[in-house]
Amino acid sequence: MNGAQALIRTLVACGVDTCFMNPGTSEMHFVAALDTVPEMHGVLALFEGVATGAADGYARMADRPAATLLHLGPGLGNGLANLHNARKAQTPIVNIVGDHATYHKQYDAQLESDIETVARNVSRFIRWSAKTDEVGSDAADTVAAAYGPPGQVATLVLPADISWSEGGEVATPKAPAPRGAIGDDAVRAIANVLRSGEPAVLLVGGTACRAESLAHARAIADATGAKLLCETFPTRIERGAGRVAVDRIAYLAEYATMQLEGAKHLVLVDAKAPVSFFAYPDKASWLSPAGCEIHTLAGPADDSAFALAALASDLGATAAAVSRQDAARPELPSGDLTAQTLCASLGALLPEGAVVSDEGNTSGLFAAGATAGAPPHDWLCLTGGAIGQGLPVAVGAAAACRDRRVVALESDGSAMYTLQSWWTMRREGLDVTTIICNNRSYAVLNMELNRVGAEAGPKAREMLDLHHPDLDFVALAHGMGLPATRATTAEEFNDQLARALATPGPSVVEAVVPSIV
Amino acid sequence: MNGAQALIRTLVACGVDTCFMNPGTSEMHFVAALDTVPEMHGVLALFEGVATGAADGYARMADRPAATLLHLGPGLGNGLANLHNARKAQTPIVNIVGDHATYHKQYDAQLESDIETVARNVSRFIRWSAKTDEVGSDAADTVAAAYGPPGQVATLVLPADISWSEGGEVATPKAPAPRGAIGDDAVRAIANVLRSGEPAVLLVGGTACRAESLAHARAIADATGAKLLCETFPTRIERGAGRVAVDRIAYLAEYATMQLEGAKHLVLVDAKAPVSFFAYPDKASWLSPAGCEIHTLAGPADDSAFALAALASDLGATAAAVSRQDAARPELPSGDLTAQTLCASLGALLPEGAVVSDEGNTSGLFAAGATAGAPPHDWLCLTGGAIGQGLPVAVGAAAACRDRRVVALESDGSAMYTLQSWWTMRREGLDVTTIICNNRSYAVLNMELNRVGAEAGPKAREMLDLHHPDLDFVALAHGMGLPATRATTAEEFNDQLARALATPGPSVVEAVVPSIV
Repeated sequence: MNGAQALIRTLVACGVDTCFMNPGTSEMHFVAALDTVPEMHGVLALFEGVATGAADGYARMADRPAATLLHLGPGLGNGLANLHNARKAQTPIVNIVGDHATYHKQYDAQLESDIETVARNVSRFIRWSAKTDEVGSDAADTVAAAYGPPGQVATLVLPADISWSEGGEVATPKAPAPRGAIGDDAVRAIANVLRSGEPAVLLVGGTACRAESLAHARAIADATGAKLLCETFPTRIERGAGRVAVDRIAYLAEYATMQLEGAKHLVLVDAKAPVSFFAYPDKASWLSPAGCEIHTLAGPADDSAFALAALASDLGATAAAVSRQDAARPELPSGDLTAQTLCASLGALLPEGAVVSDEGNTSGLFAAGATAGAPPHDWLCLTGGAIGQGLPVAVGAAAACRDRRVVALESDGSAMYTLQSWWTMRREGLDVTTIICNNRSYAVLNMELNRVGAEAGPKAREMLDLHHPDLDFVALAHGMGLPATRATTAEEFNDQLARALATPGPSVVEAVVPSIV
Repeated sequence: MNGAQALIRTLVACGVDTCFMNPGTSEMHFVAALDTVPEMHGVLALFEGVATGAADGYARMADRPAATLLHLGPGLGNGLANLHNARKAQTPIVNIVGDHATYHKQYDAQLESDIETVARNVSRFIRWSAKTDEVGSDAADTVAAAYGPPGQVATLVLPADISWSEGGEVATPKAPAPRGAIGDDAVRAIANVLRSGEPAVLLVGGTACRAESLAHARAIADATGAKLLCETFPTRIERGAGRVAVDRIAYLAEYATMQLEGAKHLVLVDAKAPVSFFAYPDKASWLSPAGCEIHTLAGPADDSAFALAALASDLGATAAAVSRQDAARPELPSGDLTAQTLCASLGALLPEGAVVSDEGNTSGLFAAGATAGAPPHDWLCLTGGAIGQGLPVAVGAAAACRDRRVVALESDGSAMYTLQSWWTMRREGLDVTTIICNNRSYAVLNMELNRVGAEAGPKAREMLDLHHPDLDFVALAHGMGLPATRATTAEEFNDQLARALATPGPSVVEAVVPSIV
């Protein structure tokens, strides 16, 4: 057994059976080994950012990591932006980067570069596999590191000769480290804060956004008068009819400040105290009110579900009793196709059990509201702010959930970073409906340009303008083999979205909408 | 004057008047400042790899750097692969990476990451601008560092508040450091080696591939019996009818070894001793014959043109007397469209003064031969092995040479990494003719799979196969507003290529060809 075979067999033994890849010459033995391990499913991407974002989306939905396979430093670079998003999402990813043979590195060949410097940006765990008989145990360690807790991007660098040499040994999976259990005293201390009657905000994020945890959080809020909020861009939130609805902290600092106004206590559950996404001249970066005390019930490595249940129990609050979101859908809209009517249509049509990969940005502003009462579904957000996440995450979510419909709510500018995702959706036959909100603008930047107080003339505006030429997403989708249509009215969009949602495999609806900015 | 204005004015004063950009919120004051400095031309890219590759292509042709503008760590990550190629090309690039405001970094906001770890992969010079009144001098230092010699990617990190604050000061350009002058003794020593009569190879690369230097190199070879070779993937080589023709070291190590066989001396002129691009089991990485002595006439920081002229003079060799490439074009081909007939057609039609950005890979194998006797032109190669370079480099070359026709000879797999280049070509009205060699395969990997000795089954082959679905590059081009046609016979290709070359602005010819592998 060579190193590559031992590696892949170990991954499978550890429950990692999907690898999103864009390999090159140094990874050829890994690729060849796929045929010797039938349990491993290789998914080809035409660009590494698709592979890394797909691994993120996969783990968000499967609650176990996928692997990537990237080609040396440049391949890792191409995958970096979505690994950054995964790092912020605290998603477990087994990030495999091929390298030159150990003895070849001294020659500074064409593709030689310092892989570790790049990997450090996204990975606290970096293992350089140095011996073929240890590559199996390196893989087991990498999987364990990926699980954390918290989940993380763990990078395994795989030199070509370690991969091709004989003598590989399959390693035994390591039990993932347990999440931190919150002690009674810590729970009691937070309970006392909430019982004090002083204005408090309970802020949930990360692993605390699943339905059961949200129900406990709501019960706690109901019992104590605390305000319940969710972080702005949760990794995955379970929501919809019959579940507990929760407001998210606003993206715009001005609104976030209003949401937190008057709070004397901020209780964090796998969330960070809110800060502004960017700095703005003469505006605050830190958004909690002056004098607000920060308390942490559960950090990212802790068992937040347990902590919330314990806190609810201490407070005598019962999740079963909390009010749930009523089933309610918007009417199918008519007339102009706008960000508002587009989102209403999505709310009217979103299927039960859907997974929404949300990178709608400004055009998606009304989506959360319009889908609040839709049948139960999952919502995946842009966790790290590096646009180009939405389509790859949809690929991974659909690969993890073959029986569910995935909706990629995508904006035009963001789509263009990783549009190659469509090809992988088609090749894999993934049930992904992409909605392209095409306002022909980096609209969020037009908004930000004003907010940062910059005086913009025509040259600056041109840098945010996606006309000249207009992007034709129907043609682009056809170029990658996907059925696609374009809607310019609400009625057209209703029809096209309904058809796309009912069509097996991937398809695209391009919605031409005015910018809301 | 704010920091951004001082920065841009300093860049212009230093001769840097083009900035390829994909900005975000933290770069908005830089973008706004464009309107206050009419001399600076901002070129928008939809993906950072287009911006960095374009800066590379620009500098290869303009012999002066362009700037990039990238959005924090993830934007730099997206641009990394083509910065890697530029690093290997020793191209000067002023690589500007926006960052959060200095006081905002402590909050670990969504887009916060360690920019420097990523930049270290491609930049030996990294300057973190810390004061608004020094950002001008930081820029002047960065431009000087980019020039080297040798040319390099020099990175300037620009925090948002440094950019937006008042108090910027335009700095005086610094004179670039001179290239190293090769002393008489060093020239004489090499001359004596070549006079010895022992078999020698004169290997030129980098800055030594311009027409005048190649003529001196040929004169030296003629006078001494040395064999003249050029590195495999030169940054820019001037070639064609009336110029000195030179064979390049073969990509395949087996052939390269044959080219170097018997050499007792290898004389390097801004080139490295050849090594295999990848390691292969039981094959040599170091390609020079055992016992071959390596001599360096000029390193990458030296004045190779001067060194070659001095060496020729010492040997009494006259560039004026050397034989030049005859004007000769292939016949327009007929019949099947193949890698061979495609290249013949290119040779028959390549316009005088063209710039060829060559990422044809396996399908482009016959291009150098077929164009050897075409009218004088420049040839730009894939310097760092990170595919996805060809189209961005074509963007930059065309932006630098508005009066010349650029031909992007591109393969299907490589094109898909940075296809967004087409949109920028269209927006800027660049005279780029893209030839897509569509063999529906990562053909080079099919070849490499065999060469590394991997036994590949159907799962492995599927990872190298770009069918399922077939890419339709005509539709993809239309999606970005470019005229495009598809050729399936040599006659169709002849007609379509001739028309595309005569069409102002960008256009695309998709050539459906069988894989040569």
